Amino acid sequence: MAMLLIKNIGILATAEGNEPLRGSAQHAGVKLIPDCAVLVNGDTIQRICPNAEAPECENVLDAGGKLVTSGLIDAHTHLIFGGWRQHEVPLKLRGAGYLEILQAGGGILNTLTATRKATEDELYERAEAVLSEMLDHGITAVEAKSGYGLDVENELKQLRVIRRLKEEGGYNVIPTFMAAHAVPPEYKGDPDGYIEFVCREILPRVADDELCEFVDVFCETGVFDVEQSRKMLTYGQAYGFKAKIHADEIDAIGGSVLAGEMGATSAEHLIAADDKGIASMAKGGVIACLLPGTSLYLNKDFAPARKMISAGVPVAICTDFNPGSCPSCDLQLCMNLGYLKYRMTPEEVLAAVTINAACAVGRGETLGTVEPGKQADLVIWNAPDLDYLVYRMGSNLAEKVIRKGNIVK
Amino acid sequence: MAMLLIKNIGILATAEGNEPLRGSAQHAGVKLIPDCAVLVNGDTIQRICPNAEAPECENVLDAGGKLVTSGLIDAHTHLIFGGWRQHEVPLKLRGAGYLEILQAGGGILNTLTATRKATEDELYERAEAVLSEMLDHGITAVEAKSGYGLDVENELKQLRVIRRLKEEGGYNVIPTFMAAHAVPPEYKGDPDGYIEFVCREILPRVADDELCEFVDVFCETGVFDVEQSRKMLTYGQAYGFKAKIHADEIDAIGGSVLAGEMGATSAEHLIAADDKGIASMAKGGVIACLLPGTSLYLNKDFAPARKMISAGVPVAICTDFNPGSCPSCDLQLCMNLGYLKYRMTPEEVLAAVTINAACAVGRGETLGTVEPGKQADLVIWNAPDLDYLVYRMGSNLAEKVIRKGNIVK
Repeated sequence: MAMLLIKNIGILATAEGNEPLRGSAQHAGVKLIPDCAVLVNGDTIQRICPNAEAPECENVLDAGGKLVTSGLIDAHTHLIFGGWRQHEVPLKLRGAGYLEILQAGGGILNTLTATRKATEDELYERAEAVLSEMLDHGITAVEAKSGYGLDVENELKQLRVIRRLKEEGGYNVIPTFMAAHAVPPEYKGDPDGYIEFVCREILPRVADDELCEFVDVFCETGVFDVEQSRKMLTYGQAYGFKAKIHADEIDAIGGSVLAGEMGATSAEHLIAADDKGIASMAKGGVIACLLPGTSLYLNKDFAPARKMISAGVPVAICTDFNPGSCPSCDLQLCMNLGYLKYRMTPEEVLAAVTINAACAVGRGETLGTVEPGKQADLVIWNAPDLDYLVYRMGSNLAEKVIRKGNIVK
Repeated sequence: MAMLLIKNIGILATAEGNEPLRGSAQHAGVKLIPDCAVLVNGDTIQRICPNAEAPECENVLDAGGKLVTSGLIDAHTHLIFGGWRQHEVPLKLRGAGYLEILQAGGGILNTLTATRKATEDELYERAEAVLSEMLDHGITAVEAKSGYGLDVENELKQLRVIRRLKEEGGYNVIPTFMAAHAVPPEYKGDPDGYIEFVCREILPRVADDELCEFVDVFCETGVFDVEQSRKMLTYGQAYGFKAKIHADEIDAIGGSVLAGEMGATSAEHLIAADDKGIASMAKGGVIACLLPGTSLYLNKDFAPARKMISAGVPVAICTDFNPGSCPSCDLQLCMNLGYLKYRMTPEEVLAAVTINAACAVGRGETLGTVEPGKQADLVIWNAPDLDYLVYRMGSNLAEKVIRKGNIVK
């Protein structure tokens, strides 16, 4: 096993442990360790020590006194899709809502058509280009959802692409099955029928091929209601998959309450989350995956992050990368927005894209902190300190990226 | 002179002429020319022709059916400064205003100290790194202001750095003298005395050395009032320098009205601009340099761009890159914000960062459009069309950058 020493680290900013940070610990649990070195053994972090005590090592990376963190994790993307929707933005800007665009055959259904038409290879190439760019920005693990196929063949196609990105591409991609993303034309006006179809016809095939780890559902006015969402996640859990839920993006119809009741791993969006939903999430141990890029892009409010932190809900920050509401895979920009719009501290923001995001994708034991035994996913930032990382905007500050012990940038 | 052919251009998006686009022409004046080629002769555009009629040429750049535009121009930056101010953001986020931070010795005065301390070489290296990044993002010309020295020696030092960036670095930087950026500690409580000092002691030295093209002043409550601003710009004009004015960022105290009265080339910020100011700018032919990154960063309103366009004021979009209110040199992000927040069309946004920005820096005759006789500053975008360029967010879409006929990326 090759050893690698990262020396002359100015500040190592990292949480500790395998659990999400919540409440005041989301800030206080992030340590700023000055003047240290990290020794990597193969794909694993072996030791952190004062820089002066760093051992001799054949392979040395000099951090030059800069900031080092764990690799960033994007815990919410819709990575696999055909087409783009650049011509739809003017509709939105003149005031058409998400549901209006959806009802007019645009929105997700537009991407549905393009995704169904695309071959597996085409989808692979497109997604690979995005993952490559994300890695260049310091993102070493990415959750990816299906949900633009909405039939047996095309949902499986999306999930197979995710598997290939992992097996052939070497990317750390965590697959989520989200056929319950919209009602396809074949089931127009019959969401109950579609959920039944997904649970009975698609989900078993996904389980047979072990193509996902999570099941997600879009719980929203005009998409799937709470009971349909509950059914979807219950079936998913019965097959051994963990639950995620798109909740309270537009209306608080009960999605976050359901998330807490079902012990979902995470709930997503939460712009409209109310006290009842936040309390339920806190009680159920649900991680809030907040998506500030989408709020910015859609001219919406920003989710009440401070309220969630106060209530003891661990907050993660993710891109929501997708061709409609957030055509951006820039997690660094989302960190800026977490700082400026959610008014989270730099430490809270870092926890939101490392340990809390790791736990949101079921990887708290292996990713999200810089500690002995964890996977060696690390970023040397072109930044003197953590404040600077969230302060500068629009420049890719990732200078060196290490994934599984390999220097990939 | 070396010839260069850029062939297989899917869409060439460009305005025409040397004048800023205003009113409905800011949209309609941008042409989308399909399937064409551009022939460059040395540093100059020689010919645009249908792709099928492109001549033979030794040097060929294949645009691969993608979008091509003129190089982007950033018409408002505070490029030259020492230090950063990452530790000040928490103050802002808990509600301290610009003027409160300024009065507490922070803000500009913090940067003042660091800039005075820095050597010319240090300032050069820092600014060069930023210009290099901007070029990589398709920005081929950049306005840069002094204004962090605020005494004879250090204002001249900043302007000399700008000159060196042009002469040694080869960057197209347009210098603006802005000693009237804040009242330095030496003149605390005496803005009249300071303006007198700037006009009598610094400006003549700047003129002697031909170190600027524009003079700018920060007309704002608590900084310089309208009469002080008028004096500054009048002196500047007497020395042959064109006028710019930071106006109506926080309060509409008359800055935009003054801009129109004095025939300033541009007025900057304009978040609080009222109907009277907008009418004066329209009458005086003033270009509005809007800075959406700063609005985003400071959680402020966005300037009333649509109102200005309706009133016949040409709108430019710029980064305002500076260490306090907008530590971002990402003009592509500002284009997204122009689209999403100002609700400008893709064509209006393009005009705002090409021809209108060119005119805002006095370069309408040579830059800002792709036409025979203009300087060959061009970008091939990783984008199929103009809608896509303003729709994608957070990815650097500049694929190839040509400056003065040289392929620099």
